[in-house]
Amino acid sequence: MQISKFMTPEIIFGEQSISQVGESMSRLGASRVFLVSDPGVVGYGWVERVIAHLRESGLAYQLWTNVTPNPKDFEVHEGVALYRESECDAIVGIGGGSAIDAAKAIALLGSNGGSILDYEGVDRITRPLPPMVMVPTTAGSGSEVSQFSIIVDTARKVKMAIISKSLIPDIAIIDPQTLMTKDSRLTANTGVDALTHAIESYISLAANPLTEIYSLQAMRLIAANLRPSVASRYNPEAKKAMAMASLQAGIAFSNAILGAVHAMSHQLGGLLDTPHGEVNAVLLPYVLDYNYIAAPEKYRQIAEAMGENTAGLSLAESSRLAQRAVTRLLRDLDVPLTLSALGSFEEHLDMLSENAVLDVCMATNPRDMTAEDVKMIFQNAL
Amino acid sequence: MQISKFMTPEIIFGEQSISQVGESMSRLGASRVFLVSDPGVVGYGWVERVIAHLRESGLAYQLWTNVTPNPKDFEVHEGVALYRESECDAIVGIGGGSAIDAAKAIALLGSNGGSILDYEGVDRITRPLPPMVMVPTTAGSGSEVSQFSIIVDTARKVKMAIISKSLIPDIAIIDPQTLMTKDSRLTANTGVDALTHAIESYISLAANPLTEIYSLQAMRLIAANLRPSVASRYNPEAKKAMAMASLQAGIAFSNAILGAVHAMSHQLGGLLDTPHGEVNAVLLPYVLDYNYIAAPEKYRQIAEAMGENTAGLSLAESSRLAQRAVTRLLRDLDVPLTLSALGSFEEHLDMLSENAVLDVCMATNPRDMTAEDVKMIFQNAL
Ligand SMILES: [Fe+2]
Ligand SMILES: [Fe+2]
Repeated sequence: MQISKFMTPEIIFGEQSISQVGESMSRLGASRVFLVSDPGVVGYGWVERVIAHLRESGLAYQLWTNVTPNPKDFEVHEGVALYRESECDAIVGIGGGSAIDAAKAIALLGSNGGSILDYEGVDRITRPLPPMVMVPTTAGSGSEVSQFSIIVDTARKVKMAIISKSLIPDIAIIDPQTLMTKDSRLTANTGVDALTHAIESYISLAANPLTEIYSLQAMRLIAANLRPSVASRYNPEAKKAMAMASLQAGIAFSNAILGAVHAMSHQLGGLLDTPHGEVNAVLLPYVLDYNYIAAPEKYRQIAEAMGENTAGLSLAESSRLAQRAVTRLLRDLDVPLTLSALGSFEEHLDMLSENAVLDVCMATNPRDMTAEDVKMIFQNAL
Repeated sequence: MQISKFMTPEIIFGEQSISQVGESMSRLGASRVFLVSDPGVVGYGWVERVIAHLRESGLAYQLWTNVTPNPKDFEVHEGVALYRESECDAIVGIGGGSAIDAAKAIALLGSNGGSILDYEGVDRITRPLPPMVMVPTTAGSGSEVSQFSIIVDTARKVKMAIISKSLIPDIAIIDPQTLMTKDSRLTANTGVDALTHAIESYISLAANPLTEIYSLQAMRLIAANLRPSVASRYNPEAKKAMAMASLQAGIAFSNAILGAVHAMSHQLGGLLDTPHGEVNAVLLPYVLDYNYIAAPEKYRQIAEAMGENTAGLSLAESSRLAQRAVTRLLRDLDVPLTLSALGSFEEHLDMLSENAVLDVCMATNPRDMTAEDVKMIFQNAL
C-alpha cells in the first residue's frame, strides 16, 4: 500500500492581502489574539499594520516579540506563559520562519501543555491547537503552510524538528509587499532556503505528483527571480514571484518532507546559531553531488527547471547540469560557500554527524547515508 | 488589490487508501456516520468495504442510497430527514459526483436547516457543516475536493450551483482501484468532465499560479491516459493517472472556478437529465472555439499539454492546435458529438440561454457572453 497524503492551510495570496488578517481571525472565532513577531518586523511597520486590521475587526491583542533567529526553547516557554496570562484564544505570527515557528510552538503548548522538548519528532501532539493565521515577511521558510516547527533545544544545542498536521496554520496570508523591507543578505539566504526546499522535496522519497509540480515550478521561479530580487528591494515582479516560489516550495516540502541538507543544517544551526539559509547554501552543492546517483532523471528535470539547455544531451550529461545551475546561482548571490566561513565546529564533527542521521529529514533523503557519509560531506564543505 | 485564494481538503491518495475511511472519520470526532451512495456503487461492493472499515473503527452508521445521476432537491430533502432521524453526526459520501454532491447537500442542510433551494449561489452558508469524508469512485467530478455542490431544482428543471468553502470536505480519499468497476461509457464521460474542468479552470479569469499548474498537469495526464482507461477496466496505471488527473483538475476548478461549458451544461443537464460529462463533451469544442480570442497564449499551452507538436509554429498556428487535440480525443472516445443526440430542447433555447448567462460559472469565462452568444453556440452544437 503506497499512499500519498497532502494538506495545506487555506491560502490568501496577493498584494495588500495583509489587510485580511483581522477578518481571517474573526472568521476562525478569535476574540483575543496573541501576536508573535520580532523587533525587526516591528521596525518596518508590519506589526502596526496587523494591529490596525485586528482592531478594525474588533479584536483585542497581546503583542510578544522576544523571538531571535533560530527560535529557542526558553523563548517559546516565555511566550506561552504570556499567552496564558493574557487569556488569548488565537495566534497570529508575522515575520520570517523564526517568528512563525515560535508562534506555532506557542500555539502547541497553549493547548497541549508541557515543555516544547516533549514534542520533538513526528505526531506527538494530541489536542487541537488554537486558531492560527500566519503572515510571512520573508520568501523562504514556508512555515506558514508547513507542518513543521523547528525550535532549538538550548541544552543540547540542537534544532528539534516538530512535525504534525496540527502545526499547519488555519490560514496563510502571503503579501509580496512585505518582502520589500528585506535587505539583500536576508533576501539571498531565505531565497536559498526556498530553493533547498524545492530541490529536497522534489528528490525526496516521499515526493508525489501533487508535490512534484510545485517543487519544479518553485525552482523555475527561483532560477528566474532570485537574482533580481536580491539586486533590488523595489522590484515588485521579482518579489511576487519569490513569494509564490516560497509558497509552492513550502507546500511541497510540508507534504514530501526534506533530505540531508536540512538534516545536517539543523545540527550546525543549533550549534552555531547561524542563519538557516546560509548553512543550506554551503551544504546544498555537496549533498546534491552525493545524492546524484539516486535520481539522475529527476536531476535532469531540475537542470531544465533551473534554465539549463539540455537539448541533445544524454541523461548523464544533462542531469549533471543540475549541480552546475545551483552552484552558479549561489555564486551570483554572494552567500557563504564554505562552512568555515560560518564558524568553528570541527571538534563536534562526530556528534553532529551522528545526530544528522537521526534527524527526521534524513528519512526521506533519496540516498542512504551513514554518520560516516555525513561526516565526509561536512569535511568536504569546510 | 488582486488576491488569489486557495483551499483544499486533506487528501489521501493511493491504492487501498479506502481502508483509511474509518480512521479518518474517527479522527474527525464522528460517532455515527451517515453513509451516502448509490445502488450501482453498492452493487460493486465498495459500500460494503466502507462499512467494514467504519466498523473496524467502532463507528455506527446509517446507509442511504436514494441518489440518482444529477441529484435532485427532493432526494436531498429525503436524505437529510433520515440523517436527522438516525441521529448521525458525520457524513461519508462514496460514489460519483452525484453521490458526493448529494452527501455535501445533506451535510449543509443537516447543520444549517431549510430547503436546499435557499442556498443557490455563492457563500450563503452560515453555520459549520458536520465532518465530511468523501471517496470518489469515478475520475471526473472533482467534488471530493471542491467547494461546489450541484443540485437539480426540479420545479425549474435547472441545476443549481451551490458554492462555499464550507462545502470543501474535511478529507478526500482517492483510491484508484475503485475506478476498475466503471464501464467504458462512464469512464469516457467522467474523463471528459475532468478534461473540461482542467481546461475551463486554466482559461478562467480567476486562474492563478497555484491552480494553473494543476490544470495543465491534469491535461497532460488525460491526454496520455484517458484513451487507455476507456479501452480497459484493468489497466491500473491508466486508472491511477486518471484518478490523479481528476484530483488535480478538481483542486484547480474549485479555486479558479469554471466557464461557459459548465454554465451551459448546467442548464441542459437540468432540463434533460443527461450525463453531465456527455453534455460537456458536445459543448467543449464549440466553447473553445468561441473563447479562443480571449487567451491565445494559454491555448498554445493547452495544445502542448495535450501532446501537440508546436515546434516551429507561430502563436496563431500553435494555439489553434488546442481545439484539434480536444476534438481528436473526443472522437476516439465515442462520446456524443451533437446535442440532438442527447434529447430535444429546441423550444426552450431562449430560456436555457438566458439562464446560462446567470450561472455562477459564467462569471469567470474568459470571453464575455450574452444570451445571444450562448444561443448561437447551442444552435451550432445541435
Ligand atoms: Fe529550510
Ligand atoms: Fe463538471
